[in-house]
Amino acid sequence: MKRIYLDYNSTTPLSGHVRKALLSALDNFGNPSSVHAEGRAAKAIMQKARREVAALVHADPENIVFTSGATETAMTLLTPHYFMGRSPLFLSHFYFSATEHPCITSLGRFPAEMSTSVPVDSNGIVQPDSLREILARHDRSKGLPLAAIQYANHETGIIQPVVALAKVIKEAGGLFIVDAVQAAAKEKLDITEDCGDFFILSSHKIGGLKGVGAYIAAGSIIRPEPLITGGGQERGLRGGTEALPLVAAFGAAATDACNREQEHERLAKLQKRLEEGLREIMPDVIIYGSGAKRLPNTTFFSAPDIKAETMQIAFDLEGIAVSAGAACSSGKVRKSPVLQAMGAIASNGAIRVSSGRDTRTNDIEHFLKVFKNIISRKK
Amino acid sequence: MKRIYLDYNSTTPLSGHVRKALLSALDNFGNPSSVHAEGRAAKAIMQKARREVAALVHADPENIVFTSGATETAMTLLTPHYFMGRSPLFLSHFYFSATEHPCITSLGRFPAEMSTSVPVDSNGIVQPDSLREILARHDRSKGLPLAAIQYANHETGIIQPVVALAKVIKEAGGLFIVDAVQAAAKEKLDITEDCGDFFILSSHKIGGLKGVGAYIAAGSIIRPEPLITGGGQERGLRGGTEALPLVAAFGAAATDACNREQEHERLAKLQKRLEEGLREIMPDVIIYGSGAKRLPNTTFFSAPDIKAETMQIAFDLEGIAVSAGAACSSGKVRKSPVLQAMGAIASNGAIRVSSGRDTRTNDIEHFLKVFKNIISRKK
Repeated sequence: MKRIYLDYNSTTPLSGHVRKALLSALDNFGNPSSVHAEGRAAKAIMQKARREVAALVHADPENIVFTSGATETAMTLLTPHYFMGRSPLFLSHFYFSATEHPCITSLGRFPAEMSTSVPVDSNGIVQPDSLREILARHDRSKGLPLAAIQYANHETGIIQPVVALAKVIKEAGGLFIVDAVQAAAKEKLDITEDCGDFFILSSHKIGGLKGVGAYIAAGSIIRPEPLITGGGQERGLRGGTEALPLVAAFGAAATDACNREQEHERLAKLQKRLEEGLREIMPDVIIYGSGAKRLPNTTFFSAPDIKAETMQIAFDLEGIAVSAGAACSSGKVRKSPVLQAMGAIASNGAIRVSSGRDTRTNDIEHFLKVFKNIISRKK
Repeated sequence: MKRIYLDYNSTTPLSGHVRKALLSALDNFGNPSSVHAEGRAAKAIMQKARREVAALVHADPENIVFTSGATETAMTLLTPHYFMGRSPLFLSHFYFSATEHPCITSLGRFPAEMSTSVPVDSNGIVQPDSLREILARHDRSKGLPLAAIQYANHETGIIQPVVALAKVIKEAGGLFIVDAVQAAAKEKLDITEDCGDFFILSSHKIGGLKGVGAYIAAGSIIRPEPLITGGGQERGLRGGTEALPLVAAFGAAATDACNREQEHERLAKLQKRLEEGLREIMPDVIIYGSGAKRLPNTTFFSAPDIKAETMQIAFDLEGIAVSAGAACSSGKVRKSPVLQAMGAIASNGAIRVSSGRDTRTNDIEHFLKVFKNIISRKK
């Protein structure tokens, strides 16, 4: 039985192009810091990948710092200590939306007393006005505010009004970190200072490999204090031998995404069919964030009478991989903090269907058929 | 022209077996934290790799924490904040040998005033007695001492008397971090509390890929405060989606090394021939650490009349990759802090030849021939 993978927000399969880039980088196995021919070839691969990732988000390649993934990136950016050129810049308080990914809600290098969670409305949106109110209480005599609000939510796919929020944060003199992990390659993303200062990307969420990510700065002057020092790699901003084959594959995945401009529309059609189908089969199904702008690949829903965990196992047995909550922890299914923040009760949990490059109409139809069976067995 | 790669201490090519393990893990692309079949398959791959890495160093698989590489590992271990079970343990001062790798000499999360460099003798060895003297001055009322001394040096290959040093550190009530990056797979390594508390490994130095490393604890109770938190991965000790294909390849590289027990002897023969040859061609060649126990694959030498950088370029043009100093920085060739610590003058710098799995007698003979030509051109 061919399995149907509908858990792209958790991790993605590699495309042939990415695989090829990886294998080719394996043959150029040098250390990019070495000066011999092998090292120089490795360095050239790094530079190409840097340009490719930059192109995906229309950023300056020089403003990319590669890391081992989004969690390390968040840990790096979530610090009170930044530099503007060579001058230290102190960020005295950290503001984050209540629906952020655990890599943000764990606060990085901030102690709890230096942080404030910003509420979302019932659609999961951070309202610019509530953010403005909270930032108005920020004590600038101690330092600047640092804010982190994700571009799109990992569970619901809800998209935040990032440009409006960026304006509010800029008015308050703050720095703005945008977790673009789920948005990249699904939404058109232009990294400019109008929509934030630092953007978090993860390779394995856009068709690349696990083990590499990046932060991309909109400007060239302000940088966080490095989390990992040692060698002088990444202009001294991230020590450690560069994970060359992973970076090469990250670049290829970015190029893949650039070349699939129609993908958004295609996924949106699948999403529409999926959600229509869910509502036909179960009229009282709850689709979270259906009143908000969402990613075209993500549908997060609860069936009032069935535990999400039970459904998830039933889908798995039928050859369909979906998630019951985010897969960023130890496999445990817990209450979704995202839904709690939105004021949703969801006592049975919720199922996340997230589609991607290999998802076809047939897969969605089959998913709906299996869903119908699970429901009717229950009755 | 087939190139001859003699820079294994910088990074290593993959074996067919490692490549196969990587490719197979790519096909199992699930997130190890997901509960569906794809996630479970991914988790099984993680567990196999954990057992394989453990087997290389005779450690308990449960005591391995995978990271993104040796630099992150060092950054994690070099902290004043440890835990013994759930109780905090404060390490008030950091002691490290003067010849450590930059990922150690950059002090991790210790401020400079909480650290002391321990001298080496002219053979590059940390004498247990000098370490004992220094630790005798440690003020235990403030906290315990933390020491880091590498198993084998990255430039010279000199091997430290780790068991004797471990005894001294244990007597002082301290914790001992052993950077085993260069020793692993070249020396028989048994991770027990007799030779240290925490061991640093890097995959790409033993035939695996860049972007993954580990720390391995000798015991099960004491752990450093995590550097990267977020998800609950690695038992909460290192957050972030596991770099599955890299970890799988790390495991395969460890197994490869276990299966090549004769490798040590083979490399030692090549080293003997290389050093005899160097001395024949240039009687006043200086081979660093030749009076000490060294790794069988590493020869670090100076030719009194020729700049190492010039030689390195000449070798490169002749198709031979060697290093002039460690390749852990931005490609710059600087004075070796290792040689400075040993009291060596080396005003012309030094060349590091480091051999490995694919190095054959012919390669060494060809290297010597080219060396002879470079020397005679100079005359």
